[in-house]
Amino acid sequence: MKKYCFGVDVGGTTIKLGLFTVEGELLEKWEIPTRTENQSEAVLPDVASAVQGKMEEKGIAKEDVAGIGFGVPGPVTAEGIIVMNANLGWRNKNVSRELEELTGLPCKGGNDVKTAGLGEMWRGGAAGYKDAVFITLGTGVGAAIIVDGKVILGSKGAAGEVGHIKVDGEITQPCGCGGVGCMEQFASAPGIVKMAKELLERSDRPSCLRGKEITAKIVFDAVKAGDELAMEVAERFGHYLGYALSATAAIVDPEAFIIGGGVSRAGDILIEYVQKYYKKYVWPGCRDKQFVLAKLGNDAGIYGAASYVL
Amino acid sequence: MKKYCFGVDVGGTTIKLGLFTVEGELLEKWEIPTRTENQSEAVLPDVASAVQGKMEEKGIAKEDVAGIGFGVPGPVTAEGIIVMNANLGWRNKNVSRELEELTGLPCKGGNDVKTAGLGEMWRGGAAGYKDAVFITLGTGVGAAIIVDGKVILGSKGAAGEVGHIKVDGEITQPCGCGGVGCMEQFASAPGIVKMAKELLERSDRPSCLRGKEITAKIVFDAVKAGDELAMEVAERFGHYLGYALSATAAIVDPEAFIIGGGVSRAGDILIEYVQKYYKKYVWPGCRDKQFVLAKLGNDAGIYGAASYVL
Repeated sequence: MKKYCFGVDVGGTTIKLGLFTVEGELLEKWEIPTRTENQSEAVLPDVASAVQGKMEEKGIAKEDVAGIGFGVPGPVTAEGIIVMNANLGWRNKNVSRELEELTGLPCKGGNDVKTAGLGEMWRGGAAGYKDAVFITLGTGVGAAIIVDGKVILGSKGAAGEVGHIKVDGEITQPCGCGGVGCMEQFASAPGIVKMAKELLERSDRPSCLRGKEITAKIVFDAVKAGDELAMEVAERFGHYLGYALSATAAIVDPEAFIIGGGVSRAGDILIEYVQKYYKKYVWPGCRDKQFVLAKLGNDAGIYGAASYVL
Repeated sequence: MKKYCFGVDVGGTTIKLGLFTVEGELLEKWEIPTRTENQSEAVLPDVASAVQGKMEEKGIAKEDVAGIGFGVPGPVTAEGIIVMNANLGWRNKNVSRELEELTGLPCKGGNDVKTAGLGEMWRGGAAGYKDAVFITLGTGVGAAIIVDGKVILGSKGAAGEVGHIKVDGEITQPCGCGGVGCMEQFASAPGIVKMAKELLERSDRPSCLRGKEITAKIVFDAVKAGDELAMEVAERFGHYLGYALSATAAIVDPEAFIIGGGVSRAGDILIEYVQKYYKKYVWPGCRDKQFVLAKLGNDAGIYGAASYVL
């Protein structure tokens, strides 16, 4: 009878790990650094050591562990192959198989954003919805498209790349993907900061943002304080994200949008701006959707990862 | 042992019916008019009579019939309820149950576009694909989003309303949905005709379209003949449809796009224009998708309908 499982969320700078009961209770969580030297060759051995160390520390026998679930950045195929990941330097890497060989435990995983979406669906803001879209607004913008209770992968593991829907033909700077005018260039944390800096530079208008180290959180705090320049940034943010979500609704018709990632720490104010433009652009039959904030924060990934092996 | 089934495609002006073997061979097809008076109260009794008449004519016993599958316009829920259909005047109508009561046969159905998508997946241009998007370009623009071999419904049966993705903020005339700048306003048959007429009116440029009764087919025939004005219409068509499909790819990452409906009779030339803009706007990881024409034409609906009861 299995009693425990592990959830592992591999990020570009840290690897988050969680020890769970098979009932889904998080017993303990911790982090280790992501060592990216030499195509991140140490990452999977480090994960294996961390898991094995925790089992020894807690006196957990191998036969008590259901397995290790993991989330990794970049597209992952249905067979669990990471096609390509620039940050980690991985290409056509079979993480499940390698981690199984290292630990002797069953291993299963997927893309990090989809994994976080699974976590929110299991224990967070998306719980109770069969059809939902989980969006993360962080350094980039990603999404997990949940259809009939399952996160869809797409034919090459690329479903949910909503951050690369084109929203602005006017902009000329390219996105990291090579395209121009991607939603991610506006609705991500760096996008919000960039819009604020541009507005500040373009005029002498007073703003409490002047002289500050600008972050997305600080912009939305200024919005709450009634700062007009910050409100203009929030309008643009809402316009671009609301538009992209209106297109998403026209394709998959979810019950709800769950908004997570670092930017979502701005709180409900963010939803007001997104909904305003969402309702402006969306097909009338899809107007009344729920917009909710994600609930698990940085733990969504380890929860979702754990759910793979349960 | 069941030997036959019926596929019924209810349109706004005609109802198409097909008698199939349970192996999926179309034995016979015919049409009856759609009588829309008094909230289309005659439609389901007419379908029942047509089916029963065919069974008598062919000497088919009730116990030999697997059932009647049907496609109807407008959103249909997973429970088979037509939420609302303006053309037929139906609202919260349980077509399956009413048709079962009229015929004593098992009945099952769904939205007409999704049904046609099922047909193309079963026997047409989408055969062999697990993840695909079937688009119909006709009086309107609809789509069936196929994920992992199934046409997805969405939470209110509205998945696939890609025709109402906003593509142009400049236009001021509203779409039938009440929104402004919907893709359907450009990429549908009436949209193409309207774009051509506007270009003809706006200048004296020579064009073989002048003086003709313009249809989408005639516009694309003119494109093939090298008519510059028609080619400008095709560029706009390709731009708007290609853009909307690039957004669709970023959300569901299909293997292929299957293009059907009346406009698709223009042939491969249409795909050239769509692909050109699709590749311009899409996220690089989704650039290499198949674009194919639908194969079943007007029969896609009855094939898909039959597949519901097999």
